[in-house]
Amino acid sequence: MAESVRFYPLEGLPEIGPGAPLGDLLDQAISDAGFSLQEGDVLVVAQKVVSKAEGRILRLDEVTPSPFACALAQQMGRDPRLVEAVLRNCVRIVRCEPEAFIVETPHGFVCANAGIDRSNVAEEGSVLLLPIDPDASADGIRHKLEEHYGCPLAVIVSDTFGRPWRWGSANLAIGVSGIEPLTDLRGKTDASGRTLTATVLATADEIAAGAELCMGKADRIPAVLVRGATYVRGEGRATTMIMDRAHDLFR
Amino acid sequence: MAESVRFYPLEGLPEIGPGAPLGDLLDQAISDAGFSLQEGDVLVVAQKVVSKAEGRILRLDEVTPSPFACALAQQMGRDPRLVEAVLRNCVRIVRCEPEAFIVETPHGFVCANAGIDRSNVAEEGSVLLLPIDPDASADGIRHKLEEHYGCPLAVIVSDTFGRPWRWGSANLAIGVSGIEPLTDLRGKTDASGRTLTATVLATADEIAAGAELCMGKADRIPAVLVRGATYVRGEGRATTMIMDRAHDLFR
Repeated sequence: MAESVRFYPLEGLPEIGPGAPLGDLLDQAISDAGFSLQEGDVLVVAQKVVSKAEGRILRLDEVTPSPFACALAQQMGRDPRLVEAVLRNCVRIVRCEPEAFIVETPHGFVCANAGIDRSNVAEEGSVLLLPIDPDASADGIRHKLEEHYGCPLAVIVSDTFGRPWRWGSANLAIGVSGIEPLTDLRGKTDASGRTLTATVLATADEIAAGAELCMGKADRIPAVLVRGATYVRGEGRATTMIMDRAHDLFR
Repeated sequence: MAESVRFYPLEGLPEIGPGAPLGDLLDQAISDAGFSLQEGDVLVVAQKVVSKAEGRILRLDEVTPSPFACALAQQMGRDPRLVEAVLRNCVRIVRCEPEAFIVETPHGFVCANAGIDRSNVAEEGSVLLLPIDPDASADGIRHKLEEHYGCPLAVIVSDTFGRPWRWGSANLAIGVSGIEPLTDLRGKTDASGRTLTATVLATADEIAAGAELCMGKADRIPAVLVRGATYVRGEGRATTMIMDRAHDLFR
């Protein structure tokens, strides 16, 4: 029987506040759950806990919306302070409609509301911003875990984004460490011997998507251990998954 | 410890030809692999074997490209017969560029080349079309497996599509049976007691994405057994995941 891929939800992480030593706390939660990490294991960590630990919290009552933000907010029927927060965390507006406010973040992600999240923040009236450098966040966690276990590991920071053409959000990788997020199969042959011409798999996104099956949205499962997944090890960056504007037909 | 989600690759399926009894063959492969299906198990089946079993094979030398197909093919630098095949299997052209020929299929999927695939087809010069009704394909396999095991199961027919904004393809659900493809969490509360306002998860797509970690592109793993995933049972259709044009900002 070929090896299976297993996703284990990690419970028992305490509530995370600004400055919390997230790597240590994840390390502890892994031990408490009875796991010992093995070479090739991947830890998927929800963006929310990363942003909380990094203090990426914004109090909306400290945000003064600009006239531009107020005008957009009126057009979309939204809180002008939230629109201002999105504008301060984006480099370009992609769509600005009542249904969705889709922007490009400084990282290059195209997503609704610059990834800003109102749910799952302890303080009422606060929102959570994306980490400034999610790849660096993943690096920090990975190095802590590799220090403990002494073997090559990978970490993915994940977030749940909507997508064009289809209803529903899917989890994907916004930060990676220890993994090449794309698996390039071009030049390899298929089962019939034909050369695969245009096959690059979004492996890190697929690992993140699978992990969400353990996370749930309403549950306190901010991390998932993935064992048995095949991926290319390396010092990949999630930003290499971002399609540049010149190639992107939908931006 | 919370329950894990496990993905088991199913090997041992023979080469599938037109008219092959796919449900029976999958049933046999599951038994041969030593599995006995349990209530709630999901079988993810790659579109390729479904299309092959349903005879959705087109010989390119039997395709006469129209003048319109020839003009588009020249513009994109492609085989005019393949362009003609795409045009015959789409209802609308979404983008038509040298980089990508993106159309809307009769099902409503927005994807490159109408999902037509040149790799993994036994006969040189042939291409594989999407199943006419992938939900019905999933139904057929599910009923065969439920008949054998006598418990509720789910089946997902998956295909690998590119997406805007990001490099790499990801596996997603083009047909489902026994599962509601979207999990609607709106109205539920998060860990802080705040009501989740806009959270609909694309659960079937996330199961399909996780399954691809076992499939590989170059390997002969056309089916994956998924055990332990939480999903809403029902008579959902993959077409309910398709965003209608009125709501879609990117079509």
